[in-house]
Amino acid sequence: MTYQPPLADIRFILRDALQAPAQLQALAPFAEADEELLLQVMEESGKFVASAVAPLQRVGDEAGCRFEQGRVTTPPGSREAYQAFWQAGWPALACAPEDGGQGLPWVLEGVLYEMLSAANHGWTMAPGLLHGAYECLRHHGSGELKARYLARIASGEWLATMCLTEPQAGSDLGLARTRGAAQADGSYRVSGTKIFISGGEHDLTDNIVHLVLGRLPEAPAGPKGLSLFLCPKLLPDGARNAVHCERIEEKMGLHGSPTCVMRFDEATGWLIGEPHRGLNAMFVMMNAARLHVALQGIGLLDAAWQKADAYARERRQMRAPRPAGAPAAGGPDPIIEHPAIRRILDVQRAWIDGGRLLAYRTGVELDLARHHPDAARRAQAQSWCSLVTPVLKAAFTHQAFHGASDCLQVFGGHGYVREWGIEQIVRDARVTMIYEGTNEIQAIDLLVRKVLPDGGKALGELLLSLRAGLDAGRAADADVLRRFAELRYLTATLAEAARTRPLLASEAADDYLRAVALALLAWAWTQIERAPGAQAPRWSAPAAALRARVLPEFDLRLKLLQALCGPLPG
Amino acid sequence: MTYQPPLADIRFILRDALQAPAQLQALAPFAEADEELLLQVMEESGKFVASAVAPLQRVGDEAGCRFEQGRVTTPPGSREAYQAFWQAGWPALACAPEDGGQGLPWVLEGVLYEMLSAANHGWTMAPGLLHGAYECLRHHGSGELKARYLARIASGEWLATMCLTEPQAGSDLGLARTRGAAQADGSYRVSGTKIFISGGEHDLTDNIVHLVLGRLPEAPAGPKGLSLFLCPKLLPDGARNAVHCERIEEKMGLHGSPTCVMRFDEATGWLIGEPHRGLNAMFVMMNAARLHVALQGIGLLDAAWQKADAYARERRQMRAPRPAGAPAAGGPDPIIEHPAIRRILDVQRAWIDGGRLLAYRTGVELDLARHHPDAARRAQAQSWCSLVTPVLKAAFTHQAFHGASDCLQVFGGHGYVREWGIEQIVRDARVTMIYEGTNEIQAIDLLVRKVLPDGGKALGELLLSLRAGLDAGRAADADVLRRFAELRYLTATLAEAARTRPLLASEAADDYLRAVALALLAWAWTQIERAPGAQAPRWSAPAAALRARVLPEFDLRLKLLQALCGPLPG
Repeated sequence: MTYQPPLADIRFILRDALQAPAQLQALAPFAEADEELLLQVMEESGKFVASAVAPLQRVGDEAGCRFEQGRVTTPPGSREAYQAFWQAGWPALACAPEDGGQGLPWVLEGVLYEMLSAANHGWTMAPGLLHGAYECLRHHGSGELKARYLARIASGEWLATMCLTEPQAGSDLGLARTRGAAQADGSYRVSGTKIFISGGEHDLTDNIVHLVLGRLPEAPAGPKGLSLFLCPKLLPDGARNAVHCERIEEKMGLHGSPTCVMRFDEATGWLIGEPHRGLNAMFVMMNAARLHVALQGIGLLDAAWQKADAYARERRQMRAPRPAGAPAAGGPDPIIEHPAIRRILDVQRAWIDGGRLLAYRTGVELDLARHHPDAARRAQAQSWCSLVTPVLKAAFTHQAFHGASDCLQVFGGHGYVREWGIEQIVRDARVTMIYEGTNEIQAIDLLVRKVLPDGGKALGELLLSLRAGLDAGRAADADVLRRFAELRYLTATLAEAARTRPLLASEAADDYLRAVALALLAWAWTQIERAPGAQAPRWSAPAAALRARVLPEFDLRLKLLQALCGPLPG
Repeated sequence: MTYQPPLADIRFILRDALQAPAQLQALAPFAEADEELLLQVMEESGKFVASAVAPLQRVGDEAGCRFEQGRVTTPPGSREAYQAFWQAGWPALACAPEDGGQGLPWVLEGVLYEMLSAANHGWTMAPGLLHGAYECLRHHGSGELKARYLARIASGEWLATMCLTEPQAGSDLGLARTRGAAQADGSYRVSGTKIFISGGEHDLTDNIVHLVLGRLPEAPAGPKGLSLFLCPKLLPDGARNAVHCERIEEKMGLHGSPTCVMRFDEATGWLIGEPHRGLNAMFVMMNAARLHVALQGIGLLDAAWQKADAYARERRQMRAPRPAGAPAAGGPDPIIEHPAIRRILDVQRAWIDGGRLLAYRTGVELDLARHHPDAARRAQAQSWCSLVTPVLKAAFTHQAFHGASDCLQVFGGHGYVREWGIEQIVRDARVTMIYEGTNEIQAIDLLVRKVLPDGGKALGELLLSLRAGLDAGRAADADVLRRFAELRYLTATLAEAARTRPLLASEAADDYLRAVALALLAWAWTQIERAPGAQAPRWSAPAAALRARVLPEFDLRLKLLQALCGPLPG
């Protein structure tokens, strides 16, 4: 089966559980965007995904990308679908009207990319990188650069890349060696080799705009000596720039996306932002880019669940156990009636639905952080994005891969062969745990860079703000309140112990991120259960699976963390 | 890097931790096989694996198998390696001397296949199926059939298949529709379509001997109406039998092994064993076959660990956190010094080394079950194999896939591309969770078919026998004693509750198997730690990782199971 955009589910989370349309319409730039408009755009984007992008998923994997003499050919149909995509205005959904965008809330872009990734992760890679480049250029580019590139990136007429990684510089970008040398005309000559460049070369668009991290001659060593350069494939006069694709990688999955080794050979480029502040220029888009990846995870998991759920309703093997006194079936039962299969499916739904609520909420917070009139509310939204984004990126990409593998198991041997398409999702999903910062880096980002420096204050405030909406008299809410309290106590313990034990934070980071993710997931479901209609089995079965099967890991992680902290002194 | 057979580690577990050679030599058929001989055979087999089989792993994945007009071509080098393999006598290692075998203990065959699977899982599939067919024919074949086929299967001159699955009959073999009709000459006409037949057709050997599950005309419905037929590719007179390969599957991995759809079109066959007792004829080899798969898991995980460990020692990214007062490094540290990476590596070693001890011990028990002079000891060994085998199959194939994926993570983006070969291991390993009975089926086998029917008595006796060797005064032993006691109490609780709740056992099966696996793993490490030299960091680091990171899951599973059982009545 081909992925079906789950429009009713998305509407339920956006409108019924989050009341997102009302919150967004209260912001000045979105005053015209009422609930009807938002939901209509969401539904139209779903139709585009289903009709133009989903049907290319299989051929993208099987035909893959071809490389010949520096040129890359994308799988059949990719170019046509991309041309239809940008010409319909989808890339510009959340771009500013002054850049030619539609000025709609970010969360609609998030929903669009969740569906795109679910339908066809490989195809979605190239357009997915536009948005970071747009933000980066919009906030840090010179007037001249913006005039030349911003509208065409916003519209998607030209695609863009982020050229960060080098063979010796992966998680540690400070080791990058690419160099930029100033020229008399204000441009730079950029030289170096970049690897793992998604969409570094392709036939989807005529021009490709590369954002390249490199060093100026006088740069200090390490990450604080990196500058950001814009190097287009085609120069403003139409000439080919000295930007070469050397080869594309053979990968586990994601065959529809060309992963390029790019050589910059005294290529012409222009500085974006200030010298040595290249990483800073990229921070502006980091939360949105990581949230994109979290949504990829949610989308891929939903696509895997859709396949497994449909198969489990059709496939009959053996009689399922029945409650005492229930009539025995005449023949083999649909395997969805076997407890091990039912559990796999319900557990994935617990992650998908809760994840959607958390990710969409974070999307709304991104919008609030930009547009809310009150500075304190903007700061609060910024703090939410800063703390929650790495949690969602790591937890939902982890679940995408592992949950998709569990969905593969539902098919038995049929899952291991190509026929049903489930093994492709497992292979495609694996990379999301690695790119945009590995999940281990997300954990360090959360605990070492964000939670511990203020002794857990910002996280504590976030949990307090969520607590305010809970009702200790409801069992599910009380359970979340307990988890929040334990998390806050643990955070204080960690902060205290980490002061004298420099290794502790790195040792604790992965478990800590999991504990936060599970507490947030538990909270998300209390919000889902408040929405009208959430008593239906569609929602009550995953809620039960969450409490019986998913949340017990929270206590395990807490125990591991307490053991790491050891007894507190004094 | 290419897989290096870990001969010193295997020797340590076999000889120093298990004292396997002495136990085996005490059995009459192995009186001549002293420690020196056993270890020498093990080392020679390692040399063969390293020189002839490991170098073909990559080409097996990339070139794969080709199908043309009913013929299958295996990847370059496969046939030559296989011919060298059987001519050197490796398939016949543990076969009976009267069948032309070498009559060595089973455990040597197990070690050989662990290394073969680690080196080249795809290539190993075809010879791996010989051993089940050999056992099946040896115990249930008529004199005439044995005279015609047994020696050539034992030697590996002819390969064999197990044809069980049909499109509508996977885990539920009782749904099989293949038919066999008796002929006047005592042969049968066998007709039907079988899927997922590893090595159903290939160019490794001239003849292929298919063991086919099907139904006689008068057979009752369900699994008790299945008979087993032997259908060779070439008939005794040299004519081609009506056995056709219709296509081979495109799979997630294991590209070196042709997975065939086989059509039997009134093919000539002969009955193995009694009519309607086909599944019974297969039981004789089930434990050994499942133990083979557990060893595949251990081997694949070891191969993944070898790659990740080597990479983590070379690759330098960022400074690692250091204890207070330790001198700072001058540049980026090898990533093995980062806690998240170190943990991934040590956790895999905890599983691999403990798994080896458990699997080799089970191999020794297989030998004891066959050859011990005392019937009570044979029964005890049989009980060990019956209870422990499904646990090892499920737990170590689960860990192979998930642990190999963790090892991939050590490589970051470099793990997702083909270059280092780690993603191949993840893809190859995935199938081990499915075949020879899915891991969910293993869990049902353990709890529903083996533990609950006698109220947990056999499992209790097994744990008691292990308890006898522990010393409550040692912390690690006391910890295992606690887990055993909890497991026995829980088993009693489950047995009691399951009497009135027919669904409980299926709901509890997966958690129960995990709990048993973790308790056995904890016990295995107490045995490793008793061996001389186990104080070295090589062994103490994984032991620490086991206790800090792996075993806490035991308590989680117990809690989940207790919640499932609910409060006991009365």
